[in-house]
Amino acid sequence: PHHAPPTHPHTPTPTHTHTNGGMQMSSASRLRMLIEIDLFRVKLENMSPAAERLRHILGEDDSTPTPTIFTEMDTLQQEGGELEWKESARWVKFEEKVEEGGERWSKPHVSTLTLHSLFELRTCLQTGSILLDLEGYSLPQIIVEQQITDGLIPPDLKEKIIFVLLRKHRHQTKKPIHRSLADMGKSSNTASSKHVYSVCMPFYVPINHAQSRSMNDISDTPSTDQLKNKFMKKIPRDAEASNVLIGEVDFLDKPFVSFVRLAQATTLGGLTEVPVPTRLAEPFTNPTGYLFSDVAYKARDREDLIAGVDEFLDEVIVLPPGEWDPKIRIEPPKKVPSAEMRKSVLNLNELGQVNGLAGGAAGGEDEELPAPHELGEELKFTGRIGGGLWLDIKRKIPWYCSDIYDGFHIQSISAVLFIYLGCITNAITFGGLLGDATDNYQGVMESFLGTALAGSVFCLFGGQPLIILSSTGPILIFEKLLYEFSKNNDVDYMELRLWIGLHSCLQCFLLVFSDASYIIKYMTRFTEEGFSSLISFIFISDAIKKMVGAFKYYPINRGFKPDYITAYKCECIAPDQAPALGLNASAPLADDNMTLLFNLTDLDWSQLSKKECVKYGGMLVGNSCKYVPDLALMSFILFFGTYSMTVSLKKFKFSRYFPTKLRTLISDFAIIISILVFCGLDCLLALDTPKLHVPTELKPTRSDRGWLVMPFGKNPWWWCVASFVPALLVTILIFMDQQISAVIVNRKENKLKRSVPCWRKEEQRLTGILVFVLTGLSVFLAPILQYIPMPVLYGVFLYMGVASLKIEYLTFWERIKLYLMPPKHQPDFSFLRHVPMRRVHLFTLVQIVCLAVLWILKSTFLAIIFPVMILGLMVVRKLLDLMFSQHDLAWLDDILPDKDKKKKEDEKKKKKDKKAPEPESDEEVRKCTICQVWICLS
Amino acid sequence: PHHAPPTHPHTPTPTHTHTNGGMQMSSASRLRMLIEIDLFRVKLENMSPAAERLRHILGEDDSTPTPTIFTEMDTLQQEGGELEWKESARWVKFEEKVEEGGERWSKPHVSTLTLHSLFELRTCLQTGSILLDLEGYSLPQIIVEQQITDGLIPPDLKEKIIFVLLRKHRHQTKKPIHRSLADMGKSSNTASSKHVYSVCMPFYVPINHAQSRSMNDISDTPSTDQLKNKFMKKIPRDAEASNVLIGEVDFLDKPFVSFVRLAQATTLGGLTEVPVPTRLAEPFTNPTGYLFSDVAYKARDREDLIAGVDEFLDEVIVLPPGEWDPKIRIEPPKKVPSAEMRKSVLNLNELGQVNGLAGGAAGGEDEELPAPHELGEELKFTGRIGGGLWLDIKRKIPWYCSDIYDGFHIQSISAVLFIYLGCITNAITFGGLLGDATDNYQGVMESFLGTALAGSVFCLFGGQPLIILSSTGPILIFEKLLYEFSKNNDVDYMELRLWIGLHSCLQCFLLVFSDASYIIKYMTRFTEEGFSSLISFIFISDAIKKMVGAFKYYPINRGFKPDYITAYKCECIAPDQAPALGLNASAPLADDNMTLLFNLTDLDWSQLSKKECVKYGGMLVGNSCKYVPDLALMSFILFFGTYSMTVSLKKFKFSRYFPTKLRTLISDFAIIISILVFCGLDCLLALDTPKLHVPTELKPTRSDRGWLVMPFGKNPWWWCVASFVPALLVTILIFMDQQISAVIVNRKENKLKRSVPCWRKEEQRLTGILVFVLTGLSVFLAPILQYIPMPVLYGVFLYMGVASLKIEYLTFWERIKLYLMPPKHQPDFSFLRHVPMRRVHLFTLVQIVCLAVLWILKSTFLAIIFPVMILGLMVVRKLLDLMFSQHDLAWLDDILPDKDKKKKEDEKKKKKDKKAPEPESDEEVRKCTICQVWICLS
Repeated sequence: PHHAPPTHPHTPTPTHTHTNGGMQMSSASRLRMLIEIDLFRVKLENMSPAAERLRHILGEDDSTPTPTIFTEMDTLQQEGGELEWKESARWVKFEEKVEEGGERWSKPHVSTLTLHSLFELRTCLQTGSILLDLEGYSLPQIIVEQQITDGLIPPDLKEKIIFVLLRKHRHQTKKPIHRSLADMGKSSNTASSKHVYSVCMPFYVPINHAQSRSMNDISDTPSTDQLKNKFMKKIPRDAEASNVLIGEVDFLDKPFVSFVRLAQATTLGGLTEVPVPTRLAEPFTNPTGYLFSDVAYKARDREDLIAGVDEFLDEVIVLPPGEWDPKIRIEPPKKVPSAEMRKSVLNLNELGQVNGLAGGAAGGEDEELPAPHELGEELKFTGRIGGGLWLDIKRKIPWYCSDIYDGFHIQSISAVLFIYLGCITNAITFGGLLGDATDNYQGVMESFLGTALAGSVFCLFGGQPLIILSSTGPILIFEKLLYEFSKNNDVDYMELRLWIGLHSCLQCFLLVFSDASYIIKYMTRFTEEGFSSLISFIFISDAIKKMVGAFKYYPINRGFKPDYITAYKCECIAPDQAPALGLNASAPLADDNMTLLFNLTDLDWSQLSKKECVKYGGMLVGNSCKYVPDLALMSFILFFGTYSMTVSLKKFKFSRYFPTKLRTLISDFAIIISILVFCGLDCLLALDTPKLHVPTELKPTRSDRGWLVMPFGKNPWWWCVASFVPALLVTILIFMDQQISAVIVNRKENKLKRSVPCWRKEEQRLTGILVFVLTGLSVFLAPILQYIPMPVLYGVFLYMGVASLKIEYLTFWERIKLYLMPPKHQPDFSFLRHVPMRRVHLFTLVQIVCLAVLWILKSTFLAIIFPVMILGLMVVRKLLDLMFSQHDLAWLDDILPDKDKKKKEDEKKKKKDKKAPEPESDEEVRKCTICQVWICLS
Repeated sequence: PHHAPPTHPHTPTPTHTHTNGGMQMSSASRLRMLIEIDLFRVKLENMSPAAERLRHILGEDDSTPTPTIFTEMDTLQQEGGELEWKESARWVKFEEKVEEGGERWSKPHVSTLTLHSLFELRTCLQTGSILLDLEGYSLPQIIVEQQITDGLIPPDLKEKIIFVLLRKHRHQTKKPIHRSLADMGKSSNTASSKHVYSVCMPFYVPINHAQSRSMNDISDTPSTDQLKNKFMKKIPRDAEASNVLIGEVDFLDKPFVSFVRLAQATTLGGLTEVPVPTRLAEPFTNPTGYLFSDVAYKARDREDLIAGVDEFLDEVIVLPPGEWDPKIRIEPPKKVPSAEMRKSVLNLNELGQVNGLAGGAAGGEDEELPAPHELGEELKFTGRIGGGLWLDIKRKIPWYCSDIYDGFHIQSISAVLFIYLGCITNAITFGGLLGDATDNYQGVMESFLGTALAGSVFCLFGGQPLIILSSTGPILIFEKLLYEFSKNNDVDYMELRLWIGLHSCLQCFLLVFSDASYIIKYMTRFTEEGFSSLISFIFISDAIKKMVGAFKYYPINRGFKPDYITAYKCECIAPDQAPALGLNASAPLADDNMTLLFNLTDLDWSQLSKKECVKYGGMLVGNSCKYVPDLALMSFILFFGTYSMTVSLKKFKFSRYFPTKLRTLISDFAIIISILVFCGLDCLLALDTPKLHVPTELKPTRSDRGWLVMPFGKNPWWWCVASFVPALLVTILIFMDQQISAVIVNRKENKLKRSVPCWRKEEQRLTGILVFVLTGLSVFLAPILQYIPMPVLYGVFLYMGVASLKIEYLTFWERIKLYLMPPKHQPDFSFLRHVPMRRVHLFTLVQIVCLAVLWILKSTFLAIIFPVMILGLMVVRKLLDLMFSQHDLAWLDDILPDKDKKKKEDEKKKKKDKKAPEPESDEEVRKCTICQVWICLS
């Protein structure tokens, strides 16, 4: 092992004999200490600047990455007359302190230090013994003997120091958190006598830093295994431990400092935690990609370590004491500059521009632009027919077998269940709404079968089995518009839809073979925001329209007075016999009904139901005839309740209650929980609210259609050709929808939740296939599904509309909100730091105008071509280049590719992940177009 | 003027000629600079430690407080070929930067600095010229000539420097925030060419710091007056300005540094902002009670200033670079250590214990106990009969006249309106609920008159006109229990209530004359929490009970099928004539009704209303008879809607939208807005929901009572004496309620919102009197009030219950929530840092048990004595001393007075602010007991 002798063993003279005891020092002695540090500094830095030295060490060998470091700090305490090392803080990413009084771990927080403690540490490094790359046995002996050899401590203290170093270690978790009630009375007394020992130490203090390069020394003691294991999960597998020991004893008159690094990570038992290699005090072993851990691993000698401290001092961030209370614990920031970034800064010799002397350097920030979004090489434009597809197949084939075999794993079961529930919720909701939009020509049953078949095929042949196929909003809206169109124009919907499906399938194949998905790069955030906002608004307005509709469909008897209940009635009165027969003749009556009618006497009229009465030409007379009690209000309660409950449960993820896992689970199943709760409420009140229409047998939702749709017969022949046009719209829609999903997946670096892989081992084909097989089998759920009231689904509908306004990286909605916020309350969005407010507002205004135009067009006869209008957004975006500077657009949107450096001619393209599944029957051709890429699991 | 010659004019040799330009320096040059600083430091500190020096300056003369400082930093920029000083940051409490790109002010944030910038600044102070206590004329000349005299700059640069210093100043606000649309296209182009000038400066840089001791130089330019005025409001009146100027020019080869302090605060014009006295760069001029501003004001020479910087360095808080991204702006903390506190720390020579070297010092925190709540000297126990009252009168009489005359102020009008609305909302709500609880023996009308009379009397004679009298929950609950008691026991409520009022009034006077309010000190948070939680739970459970009651009162026809509407009817069927007559005889019929009955033929039965039918003994036959449509659901919507809307509007105060004032207004009027909205909804649907019962004329709510209640006659005579006992209960309630209000007022230091004085100039008697006169006049509002549906009031009731669980300093509810939170998600309550979790849980458990016992007692016949049970809480609290250590109790509760240091024998007592108003009539005697201290304004 290397051994670096101390450079200045004589310097830290024991001048400060009258400290206030404990860790705190008098102001005067601190100043003297500063002077000493400064003197060293002057000498050292005249020789070789710290930065140069570091560049040398770190640049030397980048092949072995520094492992994650778990740091534990133990302090020497006297408990019941015995000395022991007690854990007082730990670091994985941030600091967690042991709350002495609270007897528990604090929340992780950013460590705050005093400048003085940093200087003190530097002195320690200069004067203590540095032992690098030791073997991990008999360490206390080696450390102490080294110090005796160096003349740092007198030989007669050897036994005493080794005794202290070998005291047993008590970890925070070893103290049972729940004592018995009998214990509780006692502990309150010991609490007040704490810290007595620290007062009676007149002399200064040994600082001892020990490090074991392994976690296992902590879990060696079986009694704490379980508790510890919980925390073990938070530590990466390759982590190594670093132990810091600090204590005070009365037999030393100057600090005993030692830094030890072991050659190999060694598991040291819980009791023998002391004789382990050393790392320095905590601010430096903080592992959040901090440079110093690299330095500590690669340092060749004492000077390297000191250079590390000096670099640390240069990079340090200082808060003025008057503006900050040091007792406040700073929450860990979401993002921290990576060690790599900061290393490169070091190499570029540009440190210190972080925050210029006078803040004047802040202007420099403005030069930076947001990082452009990297698109995968899958999006390359090959220029050959089917070239992209061929590349995709070449890429995927080697993994095909393992994609299936990997699925035989116990964890797959929970993954299957989880995704299945997600899929089925979606299928029910969209199925219900689709049925509503198409008069049940396509209902829940069709939705289930379509999802199941298209999903299975996709999982078997698709390029990205991570994606779950499902219906999406745009398609739903298209179906609705198409159905209205065909109804208004007397076209047979089923036949038209079949042809559209066939055409669209063909067009999809054309897109696949022409590598069309490379145009994804023209799809900037502007387009995405326009697309998704329009869909959101349609969702929201439709949900509200439906709800208002309920109040019209079930009119409330406003003037009702409970006292006059006797005056409210609705009677069916027989028309005069002759006109009644006349009327009946015009009504479509079956023969046996006719018979029935003639069997009726006059008295029977009052027995008829409302529908029958109207059917047979009776007159409904009375002041309650046109009112329906309770249903409208009940529908509203179900609608609004489902919506609010879903919102609350989704938000519950961010509450403080219950463990994170449970909260995530509740949040993930928010929609299904809300549906269940409000179905329950509906059942409880047993009111005749409108219910989801599902056939109880495996037959089409509507009885007048079969499974097979005949391609010819009901519409004029030219519709077969003409349906090419609406099919083009569907294709555009599918393509846009898929492309937007692809953009999201390709922005994984943005930490989008929707794109996080949800079941890797968790990622294979088998799980997906199972999910869709289960979905197919769910058609037998019909007897249960028919209890779902429609207002509940409208509530979910509203939720989906509102939720998709708030997708994390789409700032449109956030920017609209800015209009209502005074500047000082506005969130610190990065674009607000770089783009003037009025430009931001102008950009938002352009988007609002675009949306308004789209909305107006949607309300006219042009509605059906709305997919094309969305493509128009891309044209508007192109025009924005004339109105806004590229700088502003880079912050508010993305920059269009041809504006990017021309040198990047290698155009990016993505092979469409969703490859249109092969048609299996007439039905499936239709279905596959409504099943869309929906990255379903948040 | 003093003039301190530079100590080391030769030292900053122009060695760093190759800086990267602008404010940033190469790593090498920075290190060299550090060395220089350190050398100075060593010399300086060997002579005299900074702390000692500071203690000397600051201790010298504490008579003149340092004014609040507004600091502005201007940087030299070239705009359109002309040099100008552009404002780039400002400090009032925290830093606000000019967002170069965003062209706006950033949010106030904590300044983050690099250590390097601090050292650089120290060098500047050592080398530049220091000019103290100058007169404010021709400053550029003086500064530059001084530097020439000192040999810091060559004489030929004089004109050039003066030219630069005299360039005009552009403030952030001078740039119009809203340009015309035509301008918008242009600005985007200039944006990208920014900062070009800063690259072409090869040499290092003059740093010039200038300060004007006045605000007015900014508002001198008329064009910005308005914009600036808005910001002026945020600056205290006695503020003085400090200007920091930083710029770079190419004709200087070393820094030109100058610190000037003017003898007198002088208003300097916007253009001549340069020639003004200097203060140092921004971290030091930060005025949040930072010591350095004191130092800057009192420094005698250069060494004093440098000592200030050194102290600053010692106190600085350091964040490790790996755990923090310097780009994040830190939100200002809620509380910052005050300058006084930190000064005293300085004097005690105990600096640096903030956060020990290894965090081990954190244990020391545990020694500290929360500050005990100071009670005012008004609560002293005098030992004389009426002694407290006499003292109160002596204290208040001198102010009595001005208390009234001060009210003649235009601002009083808005205060009156505001408080009036608060009072009336309260009177309506409590009046409505009280009427509901007492079968309208005491309704809204009585509530209005009682509030008005008692309030006016209180405002005329009360000791603390800030307090607004109003009904409170406990009294409401007592009235409810009393009414139930008298109904069940056949006692006349009105007569009993009168006697209780008389007795209670007498007892209140006894309390006043015996200085009883000194027992307030035994009322700890434990008692308060028990009291207010019980009331909250009663509120919540009552509101829910009422709501459930509505579903029983208006049963929903669950099986209703809209199609069978014809089958639903309810008919009144005549009983057989003979039994009917028999039945009628037993019913209480007036003579003319009898006549009417005999005039009726059989046919008329169907015309009768439900009530009439029952009255005349008819039979209600039909399947809709026992159902009432819509009302139950509508009531629920009104109830829940009012509740949720009130909650949302109250929360709106903390949203980011709209200016703070508007939000506060909306939040303050949340209850009234919600009531109005849901009354509107109710009107819109025009359903027959139960409404608030208010008489339309000035007469008692119930027609069978008069304004005067006869004291004798209906009850046995001994009730007059026996009512002493329930009167005692009322007295206890009033006393408890008032004492709890007093505790809150006396905890003003806790920043309780409820105790913030709401209309000082805003505080006098006239406003209060006007408010209550208006309240009295509001009895004529009856025609409007009768449109308020009861479910809306129940919603407010629920809100009040839930809201009072969340009163800021009552931690009971917060501690209950801790049961459900995993430790790492728990908020950083100070008691959690100091008391072990299981002790906290145990304490909470004790409280839950107490509440459960109270709740059970309340449900039995013991309900009426519940005020006494609450007194029992104080006994339980006494027993807790045996179970918990004083340390734990100090954090979780307060310490009981006799446990406090025995030396504090001067027991504190508060003369009751609420002095029971003189009886004016029988009615008022009763009312004054239900009108309670209610600090009504948020």
